[in-house]
Amino acid sequence: MTDTERAIRLMARCDALAVFSDEPGRITRAYGTPALREAQEAVAGWMREAGMDVRRDAVGNLIGRYEGEQPEAPAFLIGGHLDSVRDAGRYDGILGVLAGVAVVERLHAAERRLPFVVEVVAFADEEGLRFHSTYLGSRALAGTLDEETLSLTDDNGVTFGEAIQNFGGDPAAIESARRDPAEFLGFVEPHIEQGPNLEERDLPVGVVDAIVGGSRAEITVEGEAGHAGTVSMARRRDALCAAAELVLAIEGVGRSDPAMVATVGQFEVAPGASNVIPGEVRLTLDLRHPADEPRLRAENQLRELVAEIGARRGVLATWHEVQGYVSTRCDPGLTDRLAAAVSTCGVEPHRLPSGAGHDAVALADLLPVAMLFVRCAGGISHNPAESVDVADVAVACNVLDALVGDLVQSC
Amino acid sequence: MTDTERAIRLMARCDALAVFSDEPGRITRAYGTPALREAQEAVAGWMREAGMDVRRDAVGNLIGRYEGEQPEAPAFLIGGHLDSVRDAGRYDGILGVLAGVAVVERLHAAERRLPFVVEVVAFADEEGLRFHSTYLGSRALAGTLDEETLSLTDDNGVTFGEAIQNFGGDPAAIESARRDPAEFLGFVEPHIEQGPNLEERDLPVGVVDAIVGGSRAEITVEGEAGHAGTVSMARRRDALCAAAELVLAIEGVGRSDPAMVATVGQFEVAPGASNVIPGEVRLTLDLRHPADEPRLRAENQLRELVAEIGARRGVLATWHEVQGYVSTRCDPGLTDRLAAAVSTCGVEPHRLPSGAGHDAVALADLLPVAMLFVRCAGGISHNPAESVDVADVAVACNVLDALVGDLVQSC
Repeated sequence: MTDTERAIRLMARCDALAVFSDEPGRITRAYGTPALREAQEAVAGWMREAGMDVRRDAVGNLIGRYEGEQPEAPAFLIGGHLDSVRDAGRYDGILGVLAGVAVVERLHAAERRLPFVVEVVAFADEEGLRFHSTYLGSRALAGTLDEETLSLTDDNGVTFGEAIQNFGGDPAAIESARRDPAEFLGFVEPHIEQGPNLEERDLPVGVVDAIVGGSRAEITVEGEAGHAGTVSMARRRDALCAAAELVLAIEGVGRSDPAMVATVGQFEVAPGASNVIPGEVRLTLDLRHPADEPRLRAENQLRELVAEIGARRGVLATWHEVQGYVSTRCDPGLTDRLAAAVSTCGVEPHRLPSGAGHDAVALADLLPVAMLFVRCAGGISHNPAESVDVADVAVACNVLDALVGDLVQSC
Repeated sequence: MTDTERAIRLMARCDALAVFSDEPGRITRAYGTPALREAQEAVAGWMREAGMDVRRDAVGNLIGRYEGEQPEAPAFLIGGHLDSVRDAGRYDGILGVLAGVAVVERLHAAERRLPFVVEVVAFADEEGLRFHSTYLGSRALAGTLDEETLSLTDDNGVTFGEAIQNFGGDPAAIESARRDPAEFLGFVEPHIEQGPNLEERDLPVGVVDAIVGGSRAEITVEGEAGHAGTVSMARRRDALCAAAELVLAIEGVGRSDPAMVATVGQFEVAPGASNVIPGEVRLTLDLRHPADEPRLRAENQLRELVAEIGARRGVLATWHEVQGYVSTRCDPGLTDRLAAAVSTCGVEPHRLPSGAGHDAVALADLLPVAMLFVRCAGGISHNPAESVDVADVAVACNVLDALVGDLVQSC
């Protein structure tokens, strides 16, 4: 099978999985649903065809294991997730799982055993669609799921614990999903970029150096509503004008560092009548950077700006902190090896941060993680328009082959 | 009866009218409702007590006529309206009607006839709550109601024509409500200021020199939605940032002229998720000035700014014109007389524009109009918190007495 044929098959499998959905007419696969189970069964079949032993752990992650030369060998982990957001595309998460299967398939076809095990993992919940909490699958493997998480409820009042049970898992034995770091050489997560950088540089793949950390806040601006015709400009305390100044200040802070992104995504104005001066605005801030220090510095700068704009304009501007998350640096050693594998395949090993979170974040405390980004059209993701190129998928699989080859050399 | 007793009675009548409402627990009087009819009946009773002949015209305006020394004498018109916005205060419109009644009452108590008729008018619809079209009462008197207006429907599909019929009027004879300008000396409309200017200057009343004209527009900004984590700042076409710049530009234009007010009252952001770059904003512009020329110049400036911001930011910013309205200059002669009457009462005759529209706008083409503003607490109107002071109401009535006295002198 040529590289291109392998990539075509991988993409055909993505198409095949797209039919398993919780909702007719679009792709939605939440944790524990029949659609997720069907997707797992299809993937389990392909894993078995590739010579893997397949099992599901206590939380319902699907794990294929391609044994090494010796039974006690450590494992190299490749993977992604099979759950999705609502109205999703067909590659986010899935590409990582199927690329892992593709690598093992080629080893199996060559009847080749390695000095280490190759495990392919399909996490059961990364997006957090059902329980509004991300990385549930990978956190089970990392051993960071606590009792509180098991008590999370979905919109129908079903707890995560109950859902695990219904999905054929075992909430009481959730600890058994936890893996010993000593079992692993590392984890590589192939994933669509979800951004436009590779496309802009005309590169099929890229090497992730860090997964951004984020600050989040909800900011309220309280001014004074009034008649649009009778209150002079000088006497106004217009909440919208103050908030508009804030939006531009946030944009300015975002632009001050090429690695930073700052977004006001929600912005609600009250009372919202054309002839009434706005009395109140509620807006959200989403601030991300691959390094924590510049992000926290920017956050502090914005906190001061909120206070300054509020004071100058005579409005009450309040910063309500929403829990943020620290950045994750990919493992330097494994990432260098991944970059070398990219070079081996004749591609410039461009390094870039991931602006979105991934299972690698949850596993980074447990074992060395690396991420390979695959170019996606227009940077579009979480959307039916998600699109990747066969040629790029072929390159990604070849890079993984090369990485595995390199790991063999150093064993 | 002292001036203060007269003002106290006027305010007691405002309180009495406040009980007539379409909705329990708050003041709402739309055109043609039983509540408006009850309010008219109460006012008609007070008019008759003041020696007036009372009638309702074809649209349902209540008109009290205090005859002059000769039957053929022209009339001086004083008045306001008895309909209200939803959840209204108790003075907007009503104060004008009851101040007119108070002036006639004093003439009647003194058994005094003037060389002209005094008419007090209570317009049946100024706010446009029911048919979403303002000045319906005064436009009937001015003869500017057309067939199209009679076809307007309320939220239940009842036409204005049908509502006139149900209210005891005669839509077929609507022309009969039209008055001949030769019948009138002029019209004075006493009204709460609905703004903070008199309060800031510590003046009980003020003389309106013009009623502002307005430009209105709906502006849409179409950018590109995207992932808040993965699209770099440089690559964004953020509709909210562009719209924020526009809001501040609009504020700047408003501030460039002390007589101008510019307001963005509605501002809606889509898709409105905290982790999604806004793709579209829809906002409204309300621009007012007592003179049309500076307003239209500012409007053109803003149209250019919309285009400039759109082009510079790579977003599609579109100006959708909403019908505006020209400014109305009060009659200089009658306004000078009103100012003189204010001076006579020992008050500095401060002139100011009206930021809101009034029945005087609809009558200005027909006859000389003037407006007397009465200070209201905090500039608040269209709100149950509308509040005026007894002493200020007493001054307003005295000013009207003085104006009438001055007109007698010049007859």
